[in-house]
Amino acid sequence: MIATADASAAAADVDAALAGIDATARELRRQSPAVRARQLSAIADALEGHRAELVAIAAGETNLEAARLNAELTRTTNQLRMFGRVVTDSRSRTEVDPADHVSGTPDVRRTTRPVGPVAVFAAGNFPFAFGVAGGDTASALAAGCPVVVKRHPGHPRLSVRTAEIVVQALAGAGAPHGTFRSVDGFDAGVALVQHPSIRAAAFTGSTAGGRALFDLAASRDRPIPFYGELGSMNPVFLLPDAVHADPGGVADGLVESFTMGAGQYCTKPGLVFHPSDYDLAGILAERLADSATLAMLSASGKDRYLRAVEQVAASTAVRIASGRLGDSVPLVLTTSLDEFIADIDRLQNECFGPATLLIEYDDVAQLVGAARALEGSLTASIFTSRETDAEDRAARTGLTALLDELAELAGRIIFNGWPTGVPVGRATTHGGPYPSSTAVLHTSVGVHAIDRFLRPITYQNAPPALLPVGLRNGSEHEGEES
Amino acid sequence: MIATADASAAAADVDAALAGIDATARELRRQSPAVRARQLSAIADALEGHRAELVAIAAGETNLEAARLNAELTRTTNQLRMFGRVVTDSRSRTEVDPADHVSGTPDVRRTTRPVGPVAVFAAGNFPFAFGVAGGDTASALAAGCPVVVKRHPGHPRLSVRTAEIVVQALAGAGAPHGTFRSVDGFDAGVALVQHPSIRAAAFTGSTAGGRALFDLAASRDRPIPFYGELGSMNPVFLLPDAVHADPGGVADGLVESFTMGAGQYCTKPGLVFHPSDYDLAGILAERLADSATLAMLSASGKDRYLRAVEQVAASTAVRIASGRLGDSVPLVLTTSLDEFIADIDRLQNECFGPATLLIEYDDVAQLVGAARALEGSLTASIFTSRETDAEDRAARTGLTALLDELAELAGRIIFNGWPTGVPVGRATTHGGPYPSSTAVLHTSVGVHAIDRFLRPITYQNAPPALLPVGLRNGSEHEGEES
Repeated sequence: MIATADASAAAADVDAALAGIDATARELRRQSPAVRARQLSAIADALEGHRAELVAIAAGETNLEAARLNAELTRTTNQLRMFGRVVTDSRSRTEVDPADHVSGTPDVRRTTRPVGPVAVFAAGNFPFAFGVAGGDTASALAAGCPVVVKRHPGHPRLSVRTAEIVVQALAGAGAPHGTFRSVDGFDAGVALVQHPSIRAAAFTGSTAGGRALFDLAASRDRPIPFYGELGSMNPVFLLPDAVHADPGGVADGLVESFTMGAGQYCTKPGLVFHPSDYDLAGILAERLADSATLAMLSASGKDRYLRAVEQVAASTAVRIASGRLGDSVPLVLTTSLDEFIADIDRLQNECFGPATLLIEYDDVAQLVGAARALEGSLTASIFTSRETDAEDRAARTGLTALLDELAELAGRIIFNGWPTGVPVGRATTHGGPYPSSTAVLHTSVGVHAIDRFLRPITYQNAPPALLPVGLRNGSEHEGEES
Repeated sequence: MIATADASAAAADVDAALAGIDATARELRRQSPAVRARQLSAIADALEGHRAELVAIAAGETNLEAARLNAELTRTTNQLRMFGRVVTDSRSRTEVDPADHVSGTPDVRRTTRPVGPVAVFAAGNFPFAFGVAGGDTASALAAGCPVVVKRHPGHPRLSVRTAEIVVQALAGAGAPHGTFRSVDGFDAGVALVQHPSIRAAAFTGSTAGGRALFDLAASRDRPIPFYGELGSMNPVFLLPDAVHADPGGVADGLVESFTMGAGQYCTKPGLVFHPSDYDLAGILAERLADSATLAMLSASGKDRYLRAVEQVAASTAVRIASGRLGDSVPLVLTTSLDEFIADIDRLQNECFGPATLLIEYDDVAQLVGAARALEGSLTASIFTSRETDAEDRAARTGLTALLDELAELAGRIIFNGWPTGVPVGRATTHGGPYPSSTAVLHTSVGVHAIDRFLRPITYQNAPPALLPVGLRNGSEHEGEES
């Protein structure tokens, strides 16, 4: 990228915003897990205390409804408290190889420590859960890392107000000054990911924007991990047995999933493979005949979406089954598997809005090849009741092969359900092969999101008094101390 | 990089060498952990069966002595068997969030699966342990990934022979055809890291070479993780109490550590901070007065080393305390802390051979700043008995601050010991901040090296019969089945 006057000014602003952050990191990593857990709780309490105010600001800036925003804020405070519980349970991240005085092998103990200051690029579609105090911020703070959020332009007032609340809550809970900071603007984001004090970055957004930042992170003198959650098509594979058992129910589920939040979810089902003898396009056209225009998060996001679907619909492979271009009504496009494969590069571009592409196939056996042709995705869904049909060995073998390809393709496989809605827990994977993530070993949601910000450190023959508290013998309950 | 005729030919060769590797990966990931463990054992047995032959070839190609090579081969077979035990203990890598029928949350289960074909760039200094069948190969195979080794030019016959033995052992143990492959030559390595079927790469070698490959891995259309173990200075901090208690013993230990293997270890102590009232340079000059020239691994490696020390010695900050330039005798350089800091970029360049730089300091309090100025390292060593001196609070506080900086700097902190020699176990970290590693979250040695090649995958509401075996209820002993 070419440095402009604006870029230089932004870099200077970022330098100023990050002043002293190395010292903050030192202070922060000295605090105990129990103290850190209290800080996360304090943020959750403070957000809860400002619920009405925050939801009102968010509703004014995003077109999202209060009920949805309230639910999202609850998810956000739950996440903060969950990470508080995670950090006080440090046992799973330590290893001890005891000394062997016969062979002369030393005492070796391994734990984890924070990677250092983390840059978080907040997302536009979840102003709370992937926003200033969202999962990336919560997991980085839980790991003991100072956080610098690049605020999202889609909800500027909410971002500033949330940042104020976080800063105040952290101060009240004894966090070092500067534990949380935030910056604003495109050029500031570019400067942030290149700042020498930043040791890792987390991003949720578009493939183009995320890839540009990934490239900057990788080309630093000292490269840093860049955890980008970029585009995802979330293919759905409808098998004949499932759709013929409940043709209407499957169609209803799809409508709800691809139009939810006006289709602005990273887990929106963008590709739906269905048998050619199941008239999904016809059922959807009927269901969606009277659909109103859906309000989108922002005018600029709507523009980007409309341009993206226009490009997809320009393919000679594609027909419109319901809805229309140039408007954010639910849009159903349809094609055949052969046509899809012939124009796959164009057709598997994410359209971030209420559109989905139906792909009809003739034979279940074609689906393995179709799955292999797809780019990486956060999720893959499969609808089937086949596993109970123990008689049909051939079908089960085919199903096993298809499931293997879905696991190659995605970070989460959903059976008989839709991809929107991410259960948050220990077993969560919200990530997957590129471009759904730039870091296929990691999840950006759930307990293991903290792993992104912890690095291993080994102590060899350390005197017990000089070991980190969590590595001393009998320290299994370390987290409970203060 | 500019494509040349040679590069095009190498790319075609790599394409040919990797033909069918996606199918190999599919077959391999279907095999059970117990089968995989037997394959690793079979490789270990086969190497053991060819011990005399392999050690003889290695001795002829590397100038390493038979005793050292025999010990290294034992370490290599131990590693293979260790990973066999690791894969049959899959419990630690699974998570289950049970369904909650009241709240309606689904059943969510997480396990890991192989990332896919792995490129391994073998190292020159450990022809067995970091060679064709070394730790990177063993951990990638253990994860269920096909491996393509880029053979090291320093021991071509050993590499080819080891590869033959590995291929035969894998075939005998039921591994799919093509589970292990190897390629040769610089251009082949460049093509390999960019090959679309390769999903991760592991490298041990120089900072320049590793960084070039890292950049290629990151700039792919679909970037892949690149686990590079590059340069490392392995600073040693000698505190006054320790050296004055045993001035001769400390010096003896240093001599042994920095000259071991002619200094061609990635953990060689390259920087030694010592109090100015401890005449380490004088003691070493005496100890090393009659040193003979040390045989190095290869003529080209010796050339690179001699050029590197010449550059360091050209600094006006540096004096020669023992040894001489232009010869691979043990070389002791010396400087003061102030001079070191003033020319630090030049002086913390790794010289891969029998040289070390002594840095004298006046006050222990200066060491925190010195540690902060250093680049990332695999190890940091500290010699002190301070922790027993409970009366001296100020000294302990200073020590705590210094230890914190060492942990920022390195992946392994060694107390009262030298960095050469890596204990291999569950608690091992052989990695650290850049440039010692390009992936600070990972280790390239020990049990957790396998983590580099496993990615998480989550199953939501999967019928039990369609879950991976390790995720089914009551499957805790899965690894013991065949």
